[in-house]
Amino acid sequence: MNLKMKHSTEIKVRGFHIDVFGHTNNARYLEFMEVARWELFDELLSNGYFKNQNLGFVVVNINIDYMATSHINQTLLIETELKKIGNKSIVYHQLVKEKESNQPICKADVTFCLLDLKTRKTIVVEGDNLKTIRSLFEPVVS
Amino acid sequence: MNLKMKHSTEIKVRGFHIDVFGHTNNARYLEFMEVARWELFDELLSNGYFKNQNLGFVVVNINIDYMATSHINQTLLIETELKKIGNKSIVYHQLVKEKESNQPICKADVTFCLLDLKTRKTIVVEGDNLKTIRSLFEPVVS
Amino acid sequence: MNLKMKHSTEIKVRGFHIDVFGHTNNARYLEFMEVARWELFDELLSNGYFKNQNLGFVVVNINIDYMATSHINQTLLIETELKKIGNKSIVYHQLVKEKESNQPICKADVTFCLLDLKTRKTIVVEGDNLKTIRSLFEPVVS
Amino acid sequence: MNLKMKHSTEIKVRGFHIDVFGHTNNARYLEFMEVARWELFDELLSNGYFKNQNLGFVVVNINIDYMATSHINQTLLIETELKKIGNKSIVYHQLVKEKESNQPICKADVTFCLLDLKTRKTIVVEGDNLKTIRSLFEPVVS
Repeated sequence: MNLKMKHSTEIKVRGFHIDVFGHTNNARYLEFMEVARWELFDELLSNGYFKNQNLGFVVVNINIDYMATSHINQTLLIETELKKIGNKSIVYHQLVKEKESNQPICKADVTFCLLDLKTRKTIVVEGDNLKTIRSLFEPVVS
Repeated sequence: MNLKMKHSTEIKVRGFHIDVFGHTNNARYLEFMEVARWELFDELLSNGYFKNQNLGFVVVNINIDYMATSHINQTLLIETELKKIGNKSIVYHQLVKEKESNQPICKADVTFCLLDLKTRKTIVVEGDNLKTIRSLFEPVVS
Repeated sequence: MNLKMKHSTEIKVRGFHIDVFGHTNNARYLEFMEVARWELFDELLSNGYFKNQNLGFVVVNINIDYMATSHINQTLLIETELKKIGNKSIVYHQLVKEKESNQPICKADVTFCLLDLKTRKTIVVEGDNLKTIRSLFEPVVS
Repeated sequence: MNLKMKHSTEIKVRGFHIDVFGHTNNARYLEFMEVARWELFDELLSNGYFKNQNLGFVVVNINIDYMATSHINQTLLIETELKKIGNKSIVYHQLVKEKESNQPICKADVTFCLLDLKTRKTIVVEGDNLKTIRSLFEPVVS
């Protein structure tokens, strides 16, 4: 299994992202990472696979390290990769870098569970569900 | 008809409300005004009257004047009053003041329509709907 | 004077832009319009002209019409044009459209003043300041 | 040392906190927790102690567990307590509960460092700095 492929998204820091300390507010990075995941999931969700299975994704943990600050007009690169698939959890690693200098700004592990929308219970990640989640990151030709 | 009663809400400016210019971001005032309207509408909506009628409120215009800036740790007072009820529109006037100095920060006219949620069309504001909307602002003893 | 040139920005509606009504929250459109203006102003500000003059822009009024709702995964097109330059004010008109259908979602007039950052007073828009603001919208070859 | 005192803040979930999934967006909880910390720090910062020392607080990690969803009009209680003071780090634990049912919604460890604003380097938490941070949580009479 190849989990090494990265998805990359660009976001430019705007005036309303900045807070009283003159740098990007810590909560905004979670929005940036959510943008990156939406972009990544667009494909996964648009074919309707998970909707047809009546399954949803639910974030159960975010562990984010703030390493440096970012500022107005900087372009950020958000790299998302699949880190681990556990029994009942899927962990994405997301790294936010300043594009020009390549300096790491923050990084997070974001843990999801697969939710059965009928029973509202989390389910084991296996079979076709597992294959479909992996497919987002595996190269077309391996 | 007495349209003079005011509803008042307090909000404290926090670090993440501030933007790159060092003062509260212009979009955040719309969130503050929405908080004030939710507080005001709590009563109106909690008795289920509009839900039972299958009616919703839809914002069609906001006209906001920015008069002064506000800053971290200032307490803002948002005063909301019913300005006008037209044939198909309800206009609230909202004034944001800095509490300590009483200085006006911004003010807006916010125009709503009543939406029939079945037909998705706006309807004339009359009869019991009109009475219920007015009741939020009329004094208990008039 | 040619005020007809439009600046255009694309933004995709994400999950966190949506509110309890299932469509984009009214305050988020102000963020979208601010993104469009930042993109437009990048050029104007990056050459340092206004900074060197110790001048800033201050929003004094936003008058926004909400015409239709937008939803998750829709791409919005924000068109910004210079509407009017008054004695002491500059008015931009911003139109948000759903890209695929071209349906208008909302539109706003956004009024700015030029602020002398030393005296904190607004100044008349004239001379080189006027020329520089116009230059953003005038065609290179007219 | 008594680290057991809790600080408690109330926030009501509003329409714009909700996202496309119909519950409070994960990034908004970071804003809620920041509100709680601002309230807590008001006292600490208002006496000017840290400003006089030319010291700032910088968030270096947030580890947040999402345990349940919250919804429009629910009142949330955010309890903040001092969890640990390390050599160079201060860890706050924040628990968000739904007020009426007392159900845990999410909880986070938020790790800060003390930043020397002149050198932009983090410093060891000791002496009067340590005492002042502890003082926020210690009972007046112990």
